[in-house]
Amino acid sequence: VPRLDHVNIAAADAEALGKVFTEVLGLTLVEETTVEDQGVRVLKLAAGETAIEITEPLGEETPVGRFLAKRGPGLHHMAFRVADLEAALARMKALGVRLVDEEPRIGAGGHRIAFLHPKSFGGVLVELVEAEVSEENPPS
Amino acid sequence: VPRLDHVNIAAADAEALGKVFTEVLGLTLVEETTVEDQGVRVLKLAAGETAIEITEPLGEETPVGRFLAKRGPGLHHMAFRVADLEAALARMKALGVRLVDEEPRIGAGGHRIAFLHPKSFGGVLVELVEAEVSEENPPS
Repeated sequence: VPRLDHVNIAAADAEALGKVFTEVLGLTLVEETTVEDQGVRVLKLAAGETAIEITEPLGEETPVGRFLAKRGPGLHHMAFRVADLEAALARMKALGVRLVDEEPRIGAGGHRIAFLHPKSFGGVLVELVEAEVSEENPPS
Repeated sequence: VPRLDHVNIAAADAEALGKVFTEVLGLTLVEETTVEDQGVRVLKLAAGETAIEITEPLGEETPVGRFLAKRGPGLHHMAFRVADLEAALARMKALGVRLVDEEPRIGAGGHRIAFLHPKSFGGVLVELVEAEVSEENPPS
């Protein structure tokens, strides 16, 4: 069974929302990164075996900036771990899944990632993250 | 650290979307229930320690039916486990969190649940589920 790596929330102010999730819900801030090529600042909060990511756009003309302008803040995508990203993408392509990224690229935390198109998943943007998939390995 | 109980997706056809998540992503269907007073049919799929729920409205004049008409299908809410729901609601109310449910009610799977207002969580509808919070206990 694939493991949920994280759920992502788009926010205008990641710091402020991160504070709500830590102070009200008791999550723990584990990482803060900036991914320049995606135009986002990312806070990662631990929630048991999985994590909550909060992304703040670095500008309006970024994918997350456009999402905020169009849909408003809120849930943005969900990510599953796979052991071999190339193999997973090839398998999904063969099944007729629409891919956003045909090739793996580097995401927050240095992991190899790829996005799958929401049209193939009932309107949900799905990300695949190449990482250990064992139950024992905590989210990084 | 509170544990993510599930992530919920609103869909017009839960069966069809559940098939995508099982066949393409390899999740396992663990439960199908109907919650009449919320007007939803719910599929629950295991994803490691957490779960993905897919809800299909039983009619247009239900909360999920109105969500689909307004926002389209996609991510709907996320739920965290708490050991004592009344205590959690009282604590959050004291912190100024807006509650959708002032009192616990019964959700899918017979658990006591309550929803918190998206205005307090950056546009994210958050649910609290009263359940064992230990890491060892699989999602039910």
